Amino acid sequence: MAKEKKAPRPKAVTPKGFRDYFGQDVTDRAEMLRKIAGVYHAYGFDALESSAVETVEALGKFLPDVDRPNAGVFAWQESEEDGKGDWLALRYDLTAPLARVYAQHRNDLPTPYRRYAMGPVWRNEKPGPGRYRQFYQCDADTVGAASVAADAEICAMLADCLEEVGIARGDYIVRVNNRKVLNGVLEVMGLEQGDQREAVLRTIDKFDKVGEAGVRELLGKGRLDASGAYIDGVGLSEDHVNVVVKFLSARTTALDDIERGVIKANPGFLTLSIFDGSETTDARAVFDRIQELMESETGRWRLANYATFSALGQLIGNSEVGIQGLKELAEMADLLLAQGYGHDRIVIDPSVVRGLGYYTGPVYEAELTFEILDEKGRKRQFGSVAGGGRYDDLVKRFTGQAVPATGVSIGVDRLLAALREKGRIKSREVGPVVVTVMDRDRMADYQAMVGELRRAGIRAEVYLGNPKNFGNQLKYADKRHSPVAVIEGEDEKARGVVQLKDLILGAKIAESATLEEWKERPSQFEVPRADLVAKVREILAGQDAE
Amino acid sequence: MAKEKKAPRPKAVTPKGFRDYFGQDVTDRAEMLRKIAGVYHAYGFDALESSAVETVEALGKFLPDVDRPNAGVFAWQESEEDGKGDWLALRYDLTAPLARVYAQHRNDLPTPYRRYAMGPVWRNEKPGPGRYRQFYQCDADTVGAASVAADAEICAMLADCLEEVGIARGDYIVRVNNRKVLNGVLEVMGLEQGDQREAVLRTIDKFDKVGEAGVRELLGKGRLDASGAYIDGVGLSEDHVNVVVKFLSARTTALDDIERGVIKANPGFLTLSIFDGSETTDARAVFDRIQELMESETGRWRLANYATFSALGQLIGNSEVGIQGLKELAEMADLLLAQGYGHDRIVIDPSVVRGLGYYTGPVYEAELTFEILDEKGRKRQFGSVAGGGRYDDLVKRFTGQAVPATGVSIGVDRLLAALREKGRIKSREVGPVVVTVMDRDRMADYQAMVGELRRAGIRAEVYLGNPKNFGNQLKYADKRHSPVAVIEGEDEKARGVVQLKDLILGAKIAESATLEEWKERPSQFEVPRADLVAKVREILAGQDAE
Repeated sequence: MAKEKKAPRPKAVTPKGFRDYFGQDVTDRAEMLRKIAGVYHAYGFDALESSAVETVEALGKFLPDVDRPNAGVFAWQESEEDGKGDWLALRYDLTAPLARVYAQHRNDLPTPYRRYAMGPVWRNEKPGPGRYRQFYQCDADTVGAASVAADAEICAMLADCLEEVGIARGDYIVRVNNRKVLNGVLEVMGLEQGDQREAVLRTIDKFDKVGEAGVRELLGKGRLDASGAYIDGVGLSEDHVNVVVKFLSARTTALDDIERGVIKANPGFLTLSIFDGSETTDARAVFDRIQELMESETGRWRLANYATFSALGQLIGNSEVGIQGLKELAEMADLLLAQGYGHDRIVIDPSVVRGLGYYTGPVYEAELTFEILDEKGRKRQFGSVAGGGRYDDLVKRFTGQAVPATGVSIGVDRLLAALREKGRIKSREVGPVVVTVMDRDRMADYQAMVGELRRAGIRAEVYLGNPKNFGNQLKYADKRHSPVAVIEGEDEKARGVVQLKDLILGAKIAESATLEEWKERPSQFEVPRADLVAKVREILAGQDAE
Repeated sequence: MAKEKKAPRPKAVTPKGFRDYFGQDVTDRAEMLRKIAGVYHAYGFDALESSAVETVEALGKFLPDVDRPNAGVFAWQESEEDGKGDWLALRYDLTAPLARVYAQHRNDLPTPYRRYAMGPVWRNEKPGPGRYRQFYQCDADTVGAASVAADAEICAMLADCLEEVGIARGDYIVRVNNRKVLNGVLEVMGLEQGDQREAVLRTIDKFDKVGEAGVRELLGKGRLDASGAYIDGVGLSEDHVNVVVKFLSARTTALDDIERGVIKANPGFLTLSIFDGSETTDARAVFDRIQELMESETGRWRLANYATFSALGQLIGNSEVGIQGLKELAEMADLLLAQGYGHDRIVIDPSVVRGLGYYTGPVYEAELTFEILDEKGRKRQFGSVAGGGRYDDLVKRFTGQAVPATGVSIGVDRLLAALREKGRIKSREVGPVVVTVMDRDRMADYQAMVGELRRAGIRAEVYLGNPKNFGNQLKYADKRHSPVAVIEGEDEKARGVVQLKDLILGAKIAESATLEEWKERPSQFEVPRADLVAKVREILAGQDAE
């Protein structure tokens, strides 16, 4: 007989740059997002789930008249008989769809519109290690509120979110800045919008990595990097370099001054009247006020802000945009302190820049401050897990009217990794209790057991493979990370008992046969059938305690 | 000055056939899915979130060698320099990706592999009313278990899921059948695989709609439908039509027989030995056994199953596949009754067919039995909200080895609609308490109020729009479905009080000015500032009670 010609088998592979998530990775993320959604909701933010697909026109990054838009987004053309269907694409973030939704529904939506969104976004980019083409974002934005109270609210909410998911106070800091202040400084320096200004911004972004000395080199003549390559500098004069470094270190300088008593000794350094509402330049009154502030923690925080603003104030001179930025920053700082968000949670920090063109006012960033070991075993801070700021022109694209907006995006994968790192998420996956099948005809009895266990809140399942080989059943339980296996053969049935195997303890004994303490502890128990649930619960509690 | 030429503004529209979900629609669904995931998890099912994008090859519906696959899925070609990139597509369901994932990871996954998945799927179809191109699915499948214990487990789990989300027992029924039984009947009738058999299957699927008389006409010569159009019949002989109708009504006939005492009086009608394990055909013994069964509810359920199987047994004759199907059905029925899933939750029902080619063994379907009014105001049953069955060839496409699998898909949107219908989900959306801004400079005080409310578990927000026009603030609160507005102006501040407006009651008074009972009840309260949280809580409790 001639062999039938077979169609070639398809390959079972995840497309390049995509990945599948299994078990605990899915449920841990869902649980984390649920907690964050709870905080967002309590703050009055409403959920929005826009369609994953947008017109390329609405996304705004690409023109539909080119043959095939493919840089950055996954796009395709709708089929129409005349071949001129719309170009559609998968969303690449959650902000562009928000702008579209707000423009579309602005008459029905409340203004300001507080909304949160969680879900996958897609990027048509070259995949790399840790760089995927589909990943989660988790955003909260307020559209239509010009007041920086909206920005302050989001910073406070961000701090609450981090604590809610399990990052302890002291393990994170939300840093706040305002792009207008920086623009004011650059204006005073005479740097116009353009290449050089952008180069300065890019360099400032590296402050955390290369430190003051590095930034000085990069702003000036250039610098040899760690690999030995020479990086060209921006070419600023030494005076200009000094201004930028003063800007970046305004907060740390202010803290140092307070620490060293400089401010106390030299009250004229501060013009409290601008920030404190005390409307005085009288040296004695200022001195007294400083004494008073130094007495409480909140007072010292307030003083640190004033000192920072004062330092910044000297750099922005008469720049209108700079003064506006400083006022906004001071207003946010006051609001946050008044709500009890002290410098143990939220600080003003001029070194926060957050990328380039996008933001127009306040910018903010949440950083985890605990240390982890990097791939080379060196200690480093965990780093940024969320960031955002104010942007004003997204809705304008659709309606022609500028609509102020501000929002934050939490890096879902990074925050999840941080929770694992801090032990906030169980690293040991716990599978279900597995009831083995010793007698194929008594499936109903085994099902009754898992029913009892589940009603007691214990995850449980019957082995549903071919029960012939009992070893396979235990191997299966192992692969399932099962904590307990239940065995009821003919003999046990007759005697009204069941055997329970503590698989976690069993694995430990197997791993370290020398540990006598474990060897002496039984890992298998025979209990009356009626005690099944109670004994399983006891074993699970014992495993949890270790 | 010459006008600047502007780029045309993009349209702010959801792409055709897609939609956005707002607020409660998102959170209600998330909450429902969380409850279902809890049940799946308790049964030992593990979460899987595969990538939304698959290779067209893996999805298996389309060939990448045609110019543009566009019927059914959204697909695009990866850009490679030689123009020969892979064709990728959005998944159209959650089962095809499961087959790919299982084939890809089968050495690492446990077998049997119980997994659940929830998420959007995409169909490139003509949109219509209620027909969207992106929608949610929520599936649970067991891969690698040949035993119908796996199917029984999924039916039990489905019943548990419905009760967990809020469908009361009695408001739903899970109906179970086995495709092999039907195949056996058709085999005995001499209908081969092919057009006529498929026509019979399609007709059976209409049984619920057109009833016995309608099915008789459609299987025979044809039928005038409600619109007056003539529908051609399948052309079966009257004898064959009788067989199909007997098959479809096997269960109802059995129930009637029990009701009328036919089975009691005529025990020879049943060959209990096949199903009951009693191995007897002795009329007296059978009669006694029936008497015994009639005494308990479970016994009567058991008897109804036996009577149904007996009726089906007569139709399948010696067909091997039919006998195999009947055995499987009996095994499932026994397992389910043994686990306490009686006919108030799960029944054997030969009229369940579930589509055409896909399923190979057990099929099951959950139906909501309470009545709703259709668009024309007529009463009808709510109908199907979930279904599934056994399919065996999906993994084979990749590996060449047949892997048995069975699974269920819950219709997320329909189930959510049912919960709304039954009042299990609040139809009245409740927004946050809105703290109004009477004095722009006291934003910190207002923020302190929402802070207190949130710490007490009450959703709350400060009005962040321009506060100048107080009427706009109340309009905003209205749009937010806010239950309470908080007002603290200069005067209140001085007196240490706040005003609270009960907005729900206020709206009721406004709506029905004649209702004196409401008119007499105050909808605005002045309370000491210190009592803010307590009084808001009291108002909310009062609103909930109504």
